[in-house]
Amino acid sequence: MRALVYHGPGQKSWDDVPDPRIVDSTDAIIGVDATTICGTDLHILKGDLPDTTAGRILGHEAVGTVEAVGVAVTTIKPGDRVVVSCVSACGRCRYCREARYGQCLGGGGWILGYQIDGTQAEFVRVPFADTSTYLIPAGLSDEAVLMLSDILPTAYEVGVVNGGIRPGDTVAIVGAGPIGLSAIMGARLYSPSHIIAIDLADTRLEAAKQFGADVTVNPSRQDPAKVIAGLTDGLGVDVAIEAVGIADTFEMCTRLIRPGGHVANVGVHGKPATLHLEDLWTRNVTITTGLVDTWSTPTLLKLLRTGQLAPEKFITHRFGLDQVIDAYDVFSRAAGTGALKVLLHK
Amino acid sequence: MRALVYHGPGQKSWDDVPDPRIVDSTDAIIGVDATTICGTDLHILKGDLPDTTAGRILGHEAVGTVEAVGVAVTTIKPGDRVVVSCVSACGRCRYCREARYGQCLGGGGWILGYQIDGTQAEFVRVPFADTSTYLIPAGLSDEAVLMLSDILPTAYEVGVVNGGIRPGDTVAIVGAGPIGLSAIMGARLYSPSHIIAIDLADTRLEAAKQFGADVTVNPSRQDPAKVIAGLTDGLGVDVAIEAVGIADTFEMCTRLIRPGGHVANVGVHGKPATLHLEDLWTRNVTITTGLVDTWSTPTLLKLLRTGQLAPEKFITHRFGLDQVIDAYDVFSRAAGTGALKVLLHK
Repeated sequence: MRALVYHGPGQKSWDDVPDPRIVDSTDAIIGVDATTICGTDLHILKGDLPDTTAGRILGHEAVGTVEAVGVAVTTIKPGDRVVVSCVSACGRCRYCREARYGQCLGGGGWILGYQIDGTQAEFVRVPFADTSTYLIPAGLSDEAVLMLSDILPTAYEVGVVNGGIRPGDTVAIVGAGPIGLSAIMGARLYSPSHIIAIDLADTRLEAAKQFGADVTVNPSRQDPAKVIAGLTDGLGVDVAIEAVGIADTFEMCTRLIRPGGHVANVGVHGKPATLHLEDLWTRNVTITTGLVDTWSTPTLLKLLRTGQLAPEKFITHRFGLDQVIDAYDVFSRAAGTGALKVLLHK
Repeated sequence: MRALVYHGPGQKSWDDVPDPRIVDSTDAIIGVDATTICGTDLHILKGDLPDTTAGRILGHEAVGTVEAVGVAVTTIKPGDRVVVSCVSACGRCRYCREARYGQCLGGGGWILGYQIDGTQAEFVRVPFADTSTYLIPAGLSDEAVLMLSDILPTAYEVGVVNGGIRPGDTVAIVGAGPIGLSAIMGARLYSPSHIIAIDLADTRLEAAKQFGADVTVNPSRQDPAKVIAGLTDGLGVDVAIEAVGIADTFEMCTRLIRPGGHVANVGVHGKPATLHLEDLWTRNVTITTGLVDTWSTPTLLKLLRTGQLAPEKFITHRFGLDQVIDAYDVFSRAAGTGALKVLLHK
């Protein structure tokens, strides 16, 4: 088959590789109908994640058709259409039994396209297939369902649910890339009074409005704290969601929340941040971090079916799978190309 | 009357001062039967809290007898025996209506012995008396109930409840002073499997055992992370409670917890800490801070009545109120004197 192979920092190519095969009885082989590229793939390509070694097939998001299953797999069969979760789950360890699949101790967690071969390929071996894939109900497009592999559950679980958004809340979303936009979309489900999107790129703030933010702030022109003070009787937001992954934006979140407020960190961080406990110790704040567990995928599928979520609008560019190198080029220059998510289809 | 008056950094004296009187219709004047000294009083005396100005009567903990009430006070009357909460609550603002009394926007919060005259005196004016005092059931000693003014609800709400301790949990308490010991006492109510007390002073670790810790670690001799790894299959504790108030111990807490674990900060911090988001972003951690709200005081009173809590054992030294200068001397040399809480009685 053909696959996008990582050959060490800065190097990738669309190669002929051996077809994947069933290794463990709980495996499935999935024919990839649609996949996409994540910001994390760019991190790997920079060499930021040394656990990914040369020869690895990248990608952790896919919608596909079951090609073959191991003898222990009981809930999917060849021909079924499934979404592949970015997180694989053994389903049996202590964390899996608490629905903390992202922390799986049984060999799962986020491994696809990172520690094992991934989805930017014609076929992918998915371990623990019963607990790492979801059957797709009829009538849902690949373009919509593909967003359930990672960005929608990540923003929903780690941002919206961890943040504890409630009706009437004022919510700040710091960073309006795909994850921040997904958080806006998920936050809307809880009927907040205001969603304030904060980003340095006006194009992203425009997208934020389309995804459901009612207030946008570009910190290069306006002080977010002042805008928020005006909306909250000077108190601060109820919930701030960090969707960038740098210390500055995390610290901004801790400054923007009211006493009793929540900071939900979704961003992928490479460096520490400063926690101003000298101000925060009295303020009853809650700060959460997390890797997605994907426990919310069935709920999100239902919301797609009822039309309450329409994530296909994330797809700004479409490519055939064999144009993956071009797709990486467009995605990695998102500021110029306006790319949110790029679709790679069979 | 006589009162302990702060005269600026490093200066205090037991002075003749005017008797307090009813100022607002919601006030009560309480005759102080018993009061005590808090570590925060020592901070004020060092000049660390500039909101406290010269001339202020210190102290925010008391058990007393109602002397007089304003015309709007309906739930206590002269002669009643009450505990005075360290937190005053207007009972009417947005935060009070959410039981977030520590964040009161109506003129309350922690003000006693800080921004208004306090309890280290023969009498004290308590504002918002209906929502800032609790009637004491018959049969409870001053020595036990006095711990409900501050340390017991602080450790319980900000440490134990915010930390989300559940039966079977492994809990680390970092710092075994009065707040850490209160946290141990409160944690026991949730039947954890292990309570690990961590402190540099062996005398405090001995106290920790008496208060309910089953494992003690002195970091000058043992690595807490290694001890905890041995107790938790290498995962880390479910809950770590910070009861010191310095960056090092806070950061230790973030290292000791398992994926999915909680850090509950109770310590009073004067400086920022480093938050290692580069490690924590994937680990589903929850970090909380808070000032006590005292919503738990009725529950804690009930636990005193049933004998499930016996906080009178905090009292290591007893003085008459007019010996308050000696009491400060003993309390401020706690490492040498072994003082936990010093009782000042009428």
